[in-house]
Amino acid sequence: MRKIIPLLFLIGLAGTATAQFDELLPVPQHVKPGKGRFRLGPNFRVVLRESTPSRIRPGANRWLTRLDGRTGLNLPDTAATQGFPGDGLNIWVRTRAALALHDDESYVLKITPRRIMLEAETDLGALHGLETLLQLLSADASGYYFPAGKIEDAPRFPWRGLLIDVCRHWQPAAVIKRNLDGMAAMKLNVLHWHLSEDQGFRIESRRYPKLHEKGSNGHYFTQHEVRDIIAYADARGIRVVPEFDLPGHATAWFVGHPELASAPGPYTIETGFGVFDPAMDPTREEVYTFLDTFLTEMCDLFPDAYFHIGGDENNGKHWNANPKIQAFMQENDLADNHALQQYFNQRLLKILEKNGKRMMGWDEILQPGIPRNIVIQSWRGREALVQAATQGYDVLLSNGYYIDLGKPAAEHYRNDPLPAGSQLDAEARKHVLGGEATMWGELISPETIDSRIWPRTCAIAERLWSAASVKDVSDLYRRLEGASLWLEMDGLRHRSNREIMMRRAAGSTAIQPLATLLDVVEPLKIYQRHHQGIPYSTALPLTRIPDMAIPDAPVARRFRTAMEDYLREPDEPGRIVLTLWLRSWRDNHAAYLELCESAPLLREGIPLSLRLKSLAVVGLELLEMHAAGTPVAEKETVIARTIANAREPSAESELAVVEAFEMLYRTVYAP
Amino acid sequence: MRKIIPLLFLIGLAGTATAQFDELLPVPQHVKPGKGRFRLGPNFRVVLRESTPSRIRPGANRWLTRLDGRTGLNLPDTAATQGFPGDGLNIWVRTRAALALHDDESYVLKITPRRIMLEAETDLGALHGLETLLQLLSADASGYYFPAGKIEDAPRFPWRGLLIDVCRHWQPAAVIKRNLDGMAAMKLNVLHWHLSEDQGFRIESRRYPKLHEKGSNGHYFTQHEVRDIIAYADARGIRVVPEFDLPGHATAWFVGHPELASAPGPYTIETGFGVFDPAMDPTREEVYTFLDTFLTEMCDLFPDAYFHIGGDENNGKHWNANPKIQAFMQENDLADNHALQQYFNQRLLKILEKNGKRMMGWDEILQPGIPRNIVIQSWRGREALVQAATQGYDVLLSNGYYIDLGKPAAEHYRNDPLPAGSQLDAEARKHVLGGEATMWGELISPETIDSRIWPRTCAIAERLWSAASVKDVSDLYRRLEGASLWLEMDGLRHRSNREIMMRRAAGSTAIQPLATLLDVVEPLKIYQRHHQGIPYSTALPLTRIPDMAIPDAPVARRFRTAMEDYLREPDEPGRIVLTLWLRSWRDNHAAYLELCESAPLLREGIPLSLRLKSLAVVGLELLEMHAAGTPVAEKETVIARTIANAREPSAESELAVVEAFEMLYRTVYAP
Repeated sequence: MRKIIPLLFLIGLAGTATAQFDELLPVPQHVKPGKGRFRLGPNFRVVLRESTPSRIRPGANRWLTRLDGRTGLNLPDTAATQGFPGDGLNIWVRTRAALALHDDESYVLKITPRRIMLEAETDLGALHGLETLLQLLSADASGYYFPAGKIEDAPRFPWRGLLIDVCRHWQPAAVIKRNLDGMAAMKLNVLHWHLSEDQGFRIESRRYPKLHEKGSNGHYFTQHEVRDIIAYADARGIRVVPEFDLPGHATAWFVGHPELASAPGPYTIETGFGVFDPAMDPTREEVYTFLDTFLTEMCDLFPDAYFHIGGDENNGKHWNANPKIQAFMQENDLADNHALQQYFNQRLLKILEKNGKRMMGWDEILQPGIPRNIVIQSWRGREALVQAATQGYDVLLSNGYYIDLGKPAAEHYRNDPLPAGSQLDAEARKHVLGGEATMWGELISPETIDSRIWPRTCAIAERLWSAASVKDVSDLYRRLEGASLWLEMDGLRHRSNREIMMRRAAGSTAIQPLATLLDVVEPLKIYQRHHQGIPYSTALPLTRIPDMAIPDAPVARRFRTAMEDYLREPDEPGRIVLTLWLRSWRDNHAAYLELCESAPLLREGIPLSLRLKSLAVVGLELLEMHAAGTPVAEKETVIARTIANAREPSAESELAVVEAFEMLYRTVYAP
Repeated sequence: MRKIIPLLFLIGLAGTATAQFDELLPVPQHVKPGKGRFRLGPNFRVVLRESTPSRIRPGANRWLTRLDGRTGLNLPDTAATQGFPGDGLNIWVRTRAALALHDDESYVLKITPRRIMLEAETDLGALHGLETLLQLLSADASGYYFPAGKIEDAPRFPWRGLLIDVCRHWQPAAVIKRNLDGMAAMKLNVLHWHLSEDQGFRIESRRYPKLHEKGSNGHYFTQHEVRDIIAYADARGIRVVPEFDLPGHATAWFVGHPELASAPGPYTIETGFGVFDPAMDPTREEVYTFLDTFLTEMCDLFPDAYFHIGGDENNGKHWNANPKIQAFMQENDLADNHALQQYFNQRLLKILEKNGKRMMGWDEILQPGIPRNIVIQSWRGREALVQAATQGYDVLLSNGYYIDLGKPAAEHYRNDPLPAGSQLDAEARKHVLGGEATMWGELISPETIDSRIWPRTCAIAERLWSAASVKDVSDLYRRLEGASLWLEMDGLRHRSNREIMMRRAAGSTAIQPLATLLDVVEPLKIYQRHHQGIPYSTALPLTRIPDMAIPDAPVARRFRTAMEDYLREPDEPGRIVLTLWLRSWRDNHAAYLELCESAPLLREGIPLSLRLKSLAVVGLELLEMHAAGTPVAEKETVIARTIANAREPSAESELAVVEAFEMLYRTVYAP
C-alpha cells in the first residue's frame, strides 16, 4: 500500500515549481538544455539594450513584478535598467515592432550559470522570450533558479488569435484584460473582438450614439475603454481586430436605427440564441452613408490594419420578403442572396479600403469576384480554407477551434491548419496565416468565461506556434497542468471562480461532495445544451451544475488514463488506486444528497451523482471479476445497462468517465 | 466517536443556506419571526410602486440577478415591473433620497407565506430592506423560501463609512466596485476615498495634469472612472467623500509642482512608509490660487456635500527650516505650527465653502477658532471625539476602527462611538455621526485588500447600524461565517484570492500543508510588521506568508473556543476533537517541509510550522495529563518554554493559537 499515490494527491495533481525545459508550453522550435543553474537572488538585475524605446522596458518591469510575486525576492524598483551587459538578465532588442502581421517574433534565449542573454530582432520577440524564461522558473534546496540552456524560437504561423464574443453575454474590461494576459503568456498575438450581435451592440459610437444606447442593456465599451484595452494589448504584443458582424447578426443595430433594416421593425434586442432573420438592407444608399460614417469612426479607433465584417449566417428571409429588395436584385442582375451579399460586401470593402484597412470575414464572404486582398476566416469546415488558399486568399482556420463547444483540448490540438498530407502547394501554404480560437458567448458569464477559454486554448496556442511535429497529446496534457497554474498566477480565474460558484451553490464552504461530483462531470458538448428543455436566454443564470462543470475535466481524464494503464498492465497498485477512487464515488452520493437538502440548486445533479455511484458499484464488481479472472455471466446485462444508462445527460451535463467503464467492461466480458 | 464532528468539517464550518432571522448581519432594530414560509418559484415577481423614478428599479433588478444566481431559478427578465401589489415581492418607495447625511434609511419588511411587502420612505431604505431579505434566503426539502416575519429597521448612526487608501498601493476601479458591493450588503453608506498621499496622487486633474502624471506611477483614476464609480456607489445608496490630505502627506503633489512645497525640492514619489517632512507652504498666495483652482475642479467632480482635507501628521519640520515661513508666522502672530496649520485650514475652508462643501479633517484640525460647521474625524484617540462633540462639532469615530492593524473583529465590535456610560449630554450625542473603518494601504495589494477588509468590517458595520445592546461577540462570530460567504457570492475575493496566492506560492495545487499552517497564522498586528528587518517599500511583493495569512484567523478562533469549551466542561468527545486537531498539526510539519523543497518562498514559514508542531506535541501531553489528572512535574519547564517560544513572531507573522495552550497549561499545572 505504501507505494500507492494517495487518492487525494492524484486528484490534486499538478505541476510543481521545478519546471524545466520539458514543461514549456508552447514548445519552442529548438531547445538545447545546458549544464548548471542560473541562481536568482536579491541582486538579480535586468539590463536592457534597445535601439529605440520599445515595449520591452515596461514589459520587463511587468515581468519582474510577476517574478517578484512568485519568488518573494523583493527585487529593487530599479531592476530593469538601461546599461551594459551584466551578470543578470540582458535583453537586446534591435527594433520596435510595428505590431502588424508578419512582424518578426523570433527570439534567442541563452541561460548560463552566470548570466542570461535574451536577443530578439523586435520587442515582440523579446516579450515572447520573457514568457519562456518565466516558465523555466525552477526551485531546489538552494532556492529559485533558471536551468542553463539555449532556446531558439519563432512561431510557425504569424496569426494566432482568440475571438471573444462580448455581445451575447457582456464581458467587462477586466475580463478582456486578464485574458489578454493569458494570451500573452501563451504567445497568442491577436484579440478578435466580436463587438456587435443580435443580442447587443457593445461599443460606444459618438457618431451614432443610439447604436450603443438602444442596442445594449447599458453594457458597452466606451471609446476610452477601447483605447485603454488596445494599449494594454499593444504593450503585450497583441493586435486587436474588431468585428462588426454584417449584414446578419445585426438586430441590435436596428433597435436604435430601424431604417437600416430590411424589414420595417420596430426591433428589440434579441434575448434568445440562434440565427435570426433581421439583416441590413443592402439596396439603399442611406445604409452605406451610415456605414461609411460609422465604419470610418471605428477604423480611426482601431489602429490595426485588419477589420472584420462578419458576413456569416445571413438567412436572407427578410431580403426575400421585401419587394423593393427583390426589385433591386432584378434591376442589378443579382441572381440570388449570395450575389446580393457579395454586392453589399463590395460596398463595405470600398469603405474599409478608403480607411486603409484590409477586410476580413467569415467564409461566407468568399464569393466570385471578391478581390484577393481580403482575409477569409474558415468556420464551417476545412474546405473553405483549402479553397481560399488555393485561390490566393489569405486565410485563417477557426473550424475545429470552437472552444465554446466544450470539446477536449486533444481535439483542438490535432486540428492543424496545414496537416501532414495537405494538398496545398507551397504558394497556397503561404496564404494560411494561422488560426483563431473562438469563445462565442451564448453560455458564458464573466464568472465562467475563463474556465471555458483556459487551459484548453493553450493547446491551440501550441498548435499555432510550435512545429507540426509537436503533437503528443498525453505530453500536452501533462504540460497543461502546469500552464493552468501559471495562468492562474497571472490573474486568470478559471479555477478560483469555480470554487466561488460551488460555495455559492452549496451555500456553504463544505463543498467536497459537490467538487467530487463535478470533477467528473462536463457540460454537454457541441450545441446539445440548448436542446435539453431549458429555454435559454441572455437572462438565464449561469451558476448551475453545467456552468460549474468544466470542459475536458482533468480528473475524469486522469481516471480514464489510470484505467487504460491498469488494463494494459494490470497490477495490484493500479487496482487499489482504481478501487479507492471508485469507493470515493460510491460513498459520495449520500453526502451529495445531504448537501442538496439545504441547496435546492444542486438537486438537478442528483441523477448524475446516482449514476456515478452506480458506475462505481459495477466498476468495483468488474475490477474484482477482472482480478479473479472470472466474469459472472448473470451480471453482464445489469452491468452493461448501468454503464449505458450513465451516458444519459442530466442537468445539461454528462459524466466524463463512462468510457473508462466501457473499457473495463469489454476487458472483463469480451477480452 | 460517532458523535464527534469530523475535524475537516469543523475546519470548513460555515453558514448553511438555511439562513434565518438569527443569521442577519447587521442585526435589525426589531425582528418578529412569523409562521410559515414564502416559497420562491419561477413565477416569483417583484412589483414596484414609487412616487418618482428611484434607485429601487435598477436596485431590484440587480437583486434579482443575485437571487437568480444563488437559486438558479431563471426568473424572467421582466420580474421587476411597475404595477399593483401582487403575490410576490411588493416594494413601495415614497421618495428618491438626495443621498445626503440624515437621509431616511428606515424600512419595514413583512414576509407572509403569500407575499412580501417592503416599504420605505426612501429608496435607500428599500435597498437596505432588499439586502436584509436576501440574507433571509433559506432552503428546505421543498426548495428555496423566505421565512415569514416582520422587520422594522433603521440605522443607529447616519454615517457608516469605509476609508480606502488607493495611494500607498494602487487599487484599480474593479477593487473599489466590488468593495462598494460589499459595503452595500453590510449597509455601510459612505466611501471615504483617500486619493492623495506621499506615495501617489491617484486622480486625474485636468487643470493641473502634472499632479497625476508626475505624482503617480501611471496608476490613477481618470475623471471618467471617478464619475463611473460615484454613479456605481450612488446606485447602491453610498455617498463618496474624497480626501486630499493636506498640508502634510503631500509629497506626490510636489513631484510635478515643487513650487507648492515648503522646501525647495526636487521631489520624487515616496516609496517608503511613515511620516515624512514635505508639506505645503501655507504662507504663499500662489499656493492658495493653485488650491482654489484644483479644489474647485474636485468639488465639481464629487457631488457629495462633504470634502475631506486630511490635516494629519504634519510634522512641521520643513516649516521650521524655512526662514520665510518663520518670518510669516512672526508677522502674523502665529505662535506655533498648530496655529499656522489652522491658518492654512481656514483658507481651505473658504475655498470649500465657496464651492458649497462642508469641510472634514482628522482630529488635528480641531483648533481654537475653527468654525462649528466642519466635521472632525477622530483617529488618535477617543478624547478628540468627546472634545469635539462637546464643543458642538459633528464628529466621526475612526480610532478603534483601523482595520489595517490586523486586530480581531471583536475589538472593533466593542468600540462603540457612544458607549454605555458616555458622559456626553443629549446635545453632544447628536453630533456623533457614526464612524469609519480605515483600510490604510501600506501592506495591501489588489489581491489581498479584500481579506483585510472582510469579513472583519462587518463587525464595524453592525456596531454602527444595530442597537448598542447588540454586543454578543460570540454571536457576532457565528454570523460572520455566513456573512463572509454572502460577500463572496456577491464578488468579494477575500477567500478565493488567498487560495490563488497559496497555489502561486506553492507552485502547485497541493497546498494542504500550507493551508493547514496558515489557518492558524496571523500577520503581525498594529505596526509590528514594519519592524521585522524587512525594508518595506511600495515595491515589496505582497505575496508572502504574512500576506496569505489573514487577520482574526477563523480556524484559530474555533480552536481557542473548542479549548475553552473543553476546559469548562471536559468530556471525551471534546478531548478527541482537540486530539485530532493537535495530531494534524503535529503531522503537518513534515508535509510542510516537503512542500518547501520546491517552494523556497515558503521557507520563511518553517519556524512557525515547527513551533506549531511543538505546541501540538506538548498539547497532546497536556491533554493526556489533564484527562489522567496527573501533571508530570518534571515536564513543566519544557512545556512552559515551548509555549512561550511559540509566541515568537516569524515571517512577520505569528501563531494565533498560543493562548489556547496557555489556558490548557494553566489548567493542568495551576488549576
